[in-house]
Amino acid sequence: MSKELEEGTEIRLDFAKLKKVAGCEEDVLPVAVQDVDSGDVLLIGYANRLALQTTLEKRIATFWSTTRNELWIKGATSGDYLEIVDIRVNCEQNSLLYRVKLKGQGACHTKGEDGFARHGCYYRTLDGPSLTFV
Amino acid sequence: MSKELEEGTEIRLDFAKLKKVAGCEEDVLPVAVQDVDSGDVLLIGYANRLALQTTLEKRIATFWSTTRNELWIKGATSGDYLEIVDIRVNCEQNSLLYRVKLKGQGACHTKGEDGFARHGCYYRTLDGPSLTFV
Repeated sequence: MSKELEEGTEIRLDFAKLKKVAGCEEDVLPVAVQDVDSGDVLLIGYANRLALQTTLEKRIATFWSTTRNELWIKGATSGDYLEIVDIRVNCEQNSLLYRVKLKGQGACHTKGEDGFARHGCYYRTLDGPSLTFV
Repeated sequence: MSKELEEGTEIRLDFAKLKKVAGCEEDVLPVAVQDVDSGDVLLIGYANRLALQTTLEKRIATFWSTTRNELWIKGATSGDYLEIVDIRVNCEQNSLLYRVKLKGQGACHTKGEDGFARHGCYYRTLDGPSLTFV
């Protein structure tokens, strides 16, 4: 993933994302993930039936990696597991909300200025004065 | 939308949702919407470039309706507008977070037992004892 995309001041939104997600090998739903302690929305991931089943069984937030086409137990490599408090479903049963507690230092794969994993992925405000749309 | 899907105790998740979303006429990103007052995640919607631009200009949460293929200014018919506090972008620039204040009674199109629009769409816990997977 490009450093400029993650740390730069240019907004280059990947509007083609969902077409790529839908092109993966599995049928998936979007999942918003919320830290129950801070209330922060940490990330949006994708879950297929196996990922949801694994999340329900292990009580650890699990997704389907739509780029690697494999089960993605969040934290399996970093240790930054997200423990499930509860799993909610929306009115139309076409999206999920994992409400979690952080077991590690952060939920984002990027690092902040302190060198540690950022708490969540939404660390930039789009309508801030320092960003430019490209 | 079926009453059973919205009010029933059977879980019939629509895992094909994102394939349908991706098949709409526009390129869209998922958008989590959070009420800054309660901290609740209210819904996940989808935005194309026009929806984001409209949201930035009007400061009202706006989406692309992937079923009707038209701009969807949330609250335009119900009056339940969501006023934008800020718009955040994730690390990889492939999802958005609208942080909002509710201008009406609720954000969900369903009604609770009191007859009013539900606050948000995630009013059911998947791992509750009263639900069965179908």
